[in-house]
Amino acid sequence: MSGTLRAVVLLSGGLDSATVLAIARAEEFDCYALSVDYGQRHRAELNSAVQVAAVLGAHEHRVMRIDLAGIGGSALTDASIAVPEQPNAGIPVTYVPARNLQLLALAAGWAEVLDASDIFIGVNAVDYSGYPDCRPEFIDAFEATLRVGTRAGVEGRALRVNAPLIRWSKSRIIREGLARGVDFAITTSCYQSDALGRACGRCDSCRIRAEGFAAAGVADPTRYVDAENHP
Amino acid sequence: MSGTLRAVVLLSGGLDSATVLAIARAEEFDCYALSVDYGQRHRAELNSAVQVAAVLGAHEHRVMRIDLAGIGGSALTDASIAVPEQPNAGIPVTYVPARNLQLLALAAGWAEVLDASDIFIGVNAVDYSGYPDCRPEFIDAFEATLRVGTRAGVEGRALRVNAPLIRWSKSRIIREGLARGVDFAITTSCYQSDALGRACGRCDSCRIRAEGFAAAGVADPTRYVDAENHP
Repeated sequence: MSGTLRAVVLLSGGLDSATVLAIARAEEFDCYALSVDYGQRHRAELNSAVQVAAVLGAHEHRVMRIDLAGIGGSALTDASIAVPEQPNAGIPVTYVPARNLQLLALAAGWAEVLDASDIFIGVNAVDYSGYPDCRPEFIDAFEATLRVGTRAGVEGRALRVNAPLIRWSKSRIIREGLARGVDFAITTSCYQSDALGRACGRCDSCRIRAEGFAAAGVADPTRYVDAENHP
Repeated sequence: MSGTLRAVVLLSGGLDSATVLAIARAEEFDCYALSVDYGQRHRAELNSAVQVAAVLGAHEHRVMRIDLAGIGGSALTDASIAVPEQPNAGIPVTYVPARNLQLLALAAGWAEVLDASDIFIGVNAVDYSGYPDCRPEFIDAFEATLRVGTRAGVEGRALRVNAPLIRWSKSRIIREGLARGVDFAITTSCYQSDALGRACGRCDSCRIRAEGFAAAGVADPTRYVDAENHP
């Protein structure tokens, strides 16, 4: 192995994970971007991930399939549950059961094969406070599981799980991303973007993203379905 | 919900997981059997799983796909790595990186949707001492991760992860399975069984299984490719 450390970076194609990839690249990791096709409605995200990985210089980008639609139970994977267009209390219907656990488990498997030292994930406990698997306690517990449950952990090379955005506001994420060269115009956050990759401007994710650009004092580069009427 | 508790039972189609399903049924759980097609070579296992789930009275049986072959790194999912036919020291090449982590993560996702209270998995720390993810430390750490990373955990209904075989010898697993009505003739353990579902009689898994029947003093019901010459 060369002196460069390898990292598996979970890349959804959204604003957060693009910033995470830029952070890992700025820290000089050799980055292996991993996107997971879990039957999500918003396939435009995966198209964005391909562009983001290329532009930010990932060493390799893989898209793996996992059958979370077979589990059901979320508006993001189950067409019979509507995506909400109003903020809601508690755990949102867009929560995909144990999703980040699946994503991190896949990342850990690939990291083992690559002999990578680090995993990066763009979870955020501020905007997604209703998602149990976006909290620091979850990341810490998962890292502890890798210490005892993987080859690297048993051999004393515990995989680090980095969640650099976990306590950042959306406006800070946007500013930190811009400072590292992220082009947010090629990212997709909308839960129900159309066939052309345009954002609905009405779902929770669109609302949080638009508020982030406003709070950061940065022009919103998002392409909306209705360019005249969005958050 | 009725008074019956629900359990998601990971069912590979092998000897161990069949015994686990029989244990969960004997404890009167309403059992949701989950098999995962992770690109393993031994597809005969999945055919066995279908039969085992039906015979032992699982309420439902699902087969989910996950793309572990895309990760590579194991003789069980990568055709370029040979399945060993001699016992080896350390972590075997048949170790699939973070496999039990993936299986448990899927089980946890389905358990959340079902509002199940328990997950059952047939890991065993005795015969597979080289696999880091077959150890009690791993199961405990994973259960702790579910307490903080799932909806049920956050709402105070922590999912239990049961690994009843974890400290049992293969011969005890066989005796306990027989006592609960398991028909081991329909289970498949071989890492490289043929198109007819017959066991090679030479891989690690065949060797451990055959030694188990011998130690239990029970006739081995396995169908071997070479009926005259096997462990």
